[in-house]
Amino acid sequence: MEDVRIVLYGVGAMGTRIAKLLLKKKGIEIVGVIDIDEEKVGKDLGEALATNKHLGIKVSDNPENVLSIANADVVIHSTTSFLKQTYPQIATAIKHGANVVSTCEELSYPYATEPELARELDKLAREHSVSILGTGINPGFLMDTLVITLTSLCQEIEQIKAARVMNAATRRASFQKKIGAGLTVNEFREGMKKKTITGHVGLTQSISMIADALKWRLRKIEADPAKPVIAKTYAESEIAKVEPGQVAGIRQCARGIKGKREVISLDFQAYIGVKEEYDAITIRGVPNIHERITPCTHGDLGTVAIIVNYIAKIMNARPGLATMIDLPVPSATIEDMRNYF
Amino acid sequence: MEDVRIVLYGVGAMGTRIAKLLLKKKGIEIVGVIDIDEEKVGKDLGEALATNKHLGIKVSDNPENVLSIANADVVIHSTTSFLKQTYPQIATAIKHGANVVSTCEELSYPYATEPELARELDKLAREHSVSILGTGINPGFLMDTLVITLTSLCQEIEQIKAARVMNAATRRASFQKKIGAGLTVNEFREGMKKKTITGHVGLTQSISMIADALKWRLRKIEADPAKPVIAKTYAESEIAKVEPGQVAGIRQCARGIKGKREVISLDFQAYIGVKEEYDAITIRGVPNIHERITPCTHGDLGTVAIIVNYIAKIMNARPGLATMIDLPVPSATIEDMRNYF
Repeated sequence: MEDVRIVLYGVGAMGTRIAKLLLKKKGIEIVGVIDIDEEKVGKDLGEALATNKHLGIKVSDNPENVLSIANADVVIHSTTSFLKQTYPQIATAIKHGANVVSTCEELSYPYATEPELARELDKLAREHSVSILGTGINPGFLMDTLVITLTSLCQEIEQIKAARVMNAATRRASFQKKIGAGLTVNEFREGMKKKTITGHVGLTQSISMIADALKWRLRKIEADPAKPVIAKTYAESEIAKVEPGQVAGIRQCARGIKGKREVISLDFQAYIGVKEEYDAITIRGVPNIHERITPCTHGDLGTVAIIVNYIAKIMNARPGLATMIDLPVPSATIEDMRNYF
Repeated sequence: MEDVRIVLYGVGAMGTRIAKLLLKKKGIEIVGVIDIDEEKVGKDLGEALATNKHLGIKVSDNPENVLSIANADVVIHSTTSFLKQTYPQIATAIKHGANVVSTCEELSYPYATEPELARELDKLAREHSVSILGTGINPGFLMDTLVITLTSLCQEIEQIKAARVMNAATRRASFQKKIGAGLTVNEFREGMKKKTITGHVGLTQSISMIADALKWRLRKIEADPAKPVIAKTYAESEIAKVEPGQVAGIRQCARGIKGKREVISLDFQAYIGVKEEYDAITIRGVPNIHERITPCTHGDLGTVAIIVNYIAKIMNARPGLATMIDLPVPSATIEDMRNYF
């Protein structure tokens, strides 16, 4: 088998990390790079990634050009969180016959918020005999796929809770900005209005995925906007200093309501100065399940891993729009990528 | 859709528990029961399960008779741990056009120890357009499927460790006997020779499944026989009293060796008087993952759950011998069973 041919669609904060992992792996060839960042367009990928290597692949802002000559097996798409914005980008990849693995949060389970775009993507993917997946560790794994996996231990389920508590100081600068670390409360409110602070995108998708897997018909999904976590003591990261009374980050909750009962509760916390980091899942049922990953899974490392680990799985999937629960059990592809076909 | 038609092949310790759960569920009908226990043959299932109900289904010791009239969608098979013994039973179910979900430990991943029987079962299942799965929580989930699922968070993996530590006092009497709880060390050794003490069956299967999922070519799998855990202080369960110096239960380890390195280590402990019960998975890699279920998942409750939760999945699977990693993400089927098709 020949090397798997990859086009990177987006080499921002996440795309750069994904590219660096791909460059270390056997059985993979990067055959095209798309980005709109003027700082990167026209440069060699090695330079765009701020490495010293010359890789012989230029960053282009013209997706049509790149895709029409790349003959890509998989486009790794990493631009924005919202499907309305990413839809035309992903559609272009599909039309050029490429499978797509995307970090787009809304694509991880698009049926809740964007059912029409989901249907159109599915139809388009089938027409071109390719497969599409949105994933990452959250949404995509920690608060949905892993939760669903653990429900298989249960005979009855009353309620599901999942919490992710992370110290934002360990995350990339763009993430820390997105959660308002170091702002005053007023600046945070302004940022929320102007959407420079977006908080976490994905809780609605995660709840929707869990409910569909269990065949629970929810009456509604309540997703709160991000709320500021106010620092009680001084805390800092490499890029932010948080004085007491300032915003250290966010807490964001969402609930799935079935009848009158809250059956799914998600609690996402990311701020500078977290005492204990963890990903916890609690299922109240028969039997009860208390599961915990300590410290919490590193968001950037984990998302890069999952995206790359789904290259082979999406190529092996049947055509159409897939979600994590349609595909076989998740697993790592740590050896030569050609071994996984 | 009509109710899913189930034949129970084996209503011993596990089969009885599975039957009781099925009787509570909507969308399921038990249409036949097979067992060789003279105490049960000829009796109504309600009586065989020691309930007060008359269920109108007689326990039969004639699989051919039961299966030829049952028109079963799925046979739930729960007899013994070893594929050489269960092969003809499962083959009979297949020949009558039934899908099979089995608790047979060796069937959970038969390629390591019984590759020929695995091939034959796969061929037979394809010929009859049915699907076959061996599962349970261990082997089947805690030390293999869940481990593999968590590897998807990793970019690189150096070593994988999984441990299951359980207080045998909470388990069924037959399990406590199987691990020699309350015996002297000499009686334990005799029991091992006579195979009345079988220990845990499945570590080799779990290691093999993990290695295959990761495409690690192991040089060998070392599976130790069960070793007695000697009680230091007095401990007891409902059926066993363990004096200091007597056997409280077992510890059993297995290792997957790649080149010269131990890359997979499994550690199974089940004894009366365990201080802290847990299921733990540690992956040394990028990133490191430390996962824990506390207390450990209840073995009987969990296995019954998984078996029943795979009824719909095996009916939806493509024909042949399946393992947990071939099928979609595990999930619970807690609502009316007909909803899951």
